[in-house]
Amino acid sequence: MPRVITLTTDFGSGSGYVAEMKGRLLHARTPFTLVDIAHDLPAHDIRAAAWLVGQACPTFPAGTLHLAVVDPGVGTTRRLVWAEIGGQQFLCPDNGLLSWVLRRGPLAAARAIPVAATAAATFHGREVIAPAAVQLLDGTPPEALGPPVAELVRLPWPDPRETPAGIDGEVLYVDAFGNLVTNLPAKLWPLVVAAGGLRVAGHDVTTLVRTYGDAAPGTPVVLVGSQGFIEAAVVEGHAAARLGAGRGTRVAIAGGQTP
Amino acid sequence: MPRVITLTTDFGSGSGYVAEMKGRLLHARTPFTLVDIAHDLPAHDIRAAAWLVGQACPTFPAGTLHLAVVDPGVGTTRRLVWAEIGGQQFLCPDNGLLSWVLRRGPLAAARAIPVAATAAATFHGREVIAPAAVQLLDGTPPEALGPPVAELVRLPWPDPRETPAGIDGEVLYVDAFGNLVTNLPAKLWPLVVAAGGLRVAGHDVTTLVRTYGDAAPGTPVVLVGSQGFIEAAVVEGHAAARLGAGRGTRVAIAGGQTP
Amino acid sequence: MPRVITLTTDFGSGSGYVAEMKGRLLHARTPFTLVDIAHDLPAHDIRAAAWLVGQACPTFPAGTLHLAVVDPGVGTTRRLVWAEIGGQQFLCPDNGLLSWVLRRGPLAAARAIPVAATAAATFHGREVIAPAAVQLLDGTPPEALGPPVAELVRLPWPDPRETPAGIDGEVLYVDAFGNLVTNLPAKLWPLVVAAGGLRVAGHDVTTLVRTYGDAAPGTPVVLVGSQGFIEAAVVEGHAAARLGAGRGTRVAIAGGQTP
Repeated sequence: MPRVITLTTDFGSGSGYVAEMKGRLLHARTPFTLVDIAHDLPAHDIRAAAWLVGQACPTFPAGTLHLAVVDPGVGTTRRLVWAEIGGQQFLCPDNGLLSWVLRRGPLAAARAIPVAATAAATFHGREVIAPAAVQLLDGTPPEALGPPVAELVRLPWPDPRETPAGIDGEVLYVDAFGNLVTNLPAKLWPLVVAAGGLRVAGHDVTTLVRTYGDAAPGTPVVLVGSQGFIEAAVVEGHAAARLGAGRGTRVAIAGGQTP
Repeated sequence: MPRVITLTTDFGSGSGYVAEMKGRLLHARTPFTLVDIAHDLPAHDIRAAAWLVGQACPTFPAGTLHLAVVDPGVGTTRRLVWAEIGGQQFLCPDNGLLSWVLRRGPLAAARAIPVAATAAATFHGREVIAPAAVQLLDGTPPEALGPPVAELVRLPWPDPRETPAGIDGEVLYVDAFGNLVTNLPAKLWPLVVAAGGLRVAGHDVTTLVRTYGDAAPGTPVVLVGSQGFIEAAVVEGHAAARLGAGRGTRVAIAGGQTP
Repeated sequence: MPRVITLTTDFGSGSGYVAEMKGRLLHARTPFTLVDIAHDLPAHDIRAAAWLVGQACPTFPAGTLHLAVVDPGVGTTRRLVWAEIGGQQFLCPDNGLLSWVLRRGPLAAARAIPVAATAAATFHGREVIAPAAVQLLDGTPPEALGPPVAELVRLPWPDPRETPAGIDGEVLYVDAFGNLVTNLPAKLWPLVVAAGGLRVAGHDVTTLVRTYGDAAPGTPVVLVGSQGFIEAAVVEGHAAARLGAGRGTRVAIAGGQTP
């Protein structure tokens, strides 16, 4: 039975919708720890949620139950699922939210969760997902939640591409510091070193560092970030604003070649 | 004794004021679960807080203690009260914060909480409400908190009005998706169907759906929302921005008549 | 062993970085209560964090372990430390974050925490601080964390200055209501009374009150605030916007003299 529950939604921090889900969860007889991961995700942005779930959830103890509700299709034919991946459990709509987690580990098990005819069609987080979590907390085995599911929806993830000129990638995520996390994995770092830098939104960033503080404030730098990807940053500054970049912005390693 | 404490304030997320209240609460000898409902409510906006408290708090387990501090009159003659309504407990200023909860269930009991002469006049959340919660957590019976109170301040709530042309209502709440929650209760839905739509800020919204995903992205729709009221929304869009509407905006069911 | 852990960062609410730290913390075998103090502090703003840590942390029960990560020097030569001050415990970079706490009580003990060569250089919160917290939660004595430290980095704090014309101070903190918390301690209040008001950003604020509600909405007022300092506010309004003031804005008590 899970001891820790996390919540990831696009409901807005301080939204009554988040509180309603928590209120329902706390009807469980079994004590648990409740952790908010994020509630201010861009509305309906499944990719943004999938990134966050994929990066943050694997750090939790095995058996943690992660509830993720970014659900533009709420009440339509999209399924609700329980899934186990990499020792973590998930309850969410089957709309691609687990795409990134599924790149980090295989699907160990999944179940479809039936939706009662009486459930409010616009809020399955409260009506279906929270009650399913309460069942799991109170000892219902996952297999009892519903019929098995063989495969989940997976969104295409942007892989780096080899081009005649080198390797092309893109910005996956802009953090609160304005740092640009690219889809270029850390293992490509030697190519960045060989190329003498990274091209980001038309700027050549040529100061390669080990950590943000290794150059003067204001300097655009490239480094291997904590998420396992190559990042562009501005020391004590905001790279997204400074370089005019955002999610989806092209980046390139000139002359690189995928190892 | 409560096992769950919730907090609703206009102090600002990440404000030290919220942390000071939590620090005081954690002096209780009895373990409890602390849940943030909202801290970014518009400053001094008792109505916004009353809506949130009224919608979110009833979903919590019976006996939950809800602390609500939106308190423009802090330190003046307004009372601080403990109240029990619908099996939930509340600690808050008696300034109308419980108006909406009181429309959902009668006042079962209430007590006035005395304010010590030494309490900082500008922060009764920390000086009076948190300590009263600690007393309740540690087993003090509510009757020991202070003298009984017969009635609480109730703000007038905007009820739908029947007009020669139909039924007039207004937007009560705009959520983080931009959905417009009106004060028209779900039971008026047949009238919306008969009228062929809802008039919102001068726009006739005529696509009636069961859930957001039942129309193409970008379509303005009307539906019965999860809060028990008729809502206007834009599929995967922001109705408030698209229709130029906000809290207080008039809505109307043409030709309707209160059942 | 700590029972309560607090978290103060500039990572952004809903950032995966916060979640990654929480995920690591929850690997502790010992149950604990996790409290978010703030995650939307201005990026790299050690002073803002030091203010918040200094004001909020002392309200927690003795033995609480406060994790504070505002760390522009992450991965460089700045130390990571455990410290005990006023019965509270802290884990943070030694970059001045504890400057304000240290004005409220002496350093009782401190240890330097070694950084493993394998730790990701850009995220010591996850790599070093969270694991150290887990050690403390699970019973490791603080002395086992690393070698003793005699003194911590202290940022200069702006003390009020006596001038020929009176006493000069400045705004230390603007809260979510727009209230201006100055560095003039409450004990100077008699001088404000004698001077008939406070000068704030070129405005003479002459309505002296005991609490916000003691004047008509819209009135600029001066009072002793809940943080132990003299504050300027606008009743049910936003003093920072109304008076054109912010952190660092000069304030003055005309004719005053430090007691």
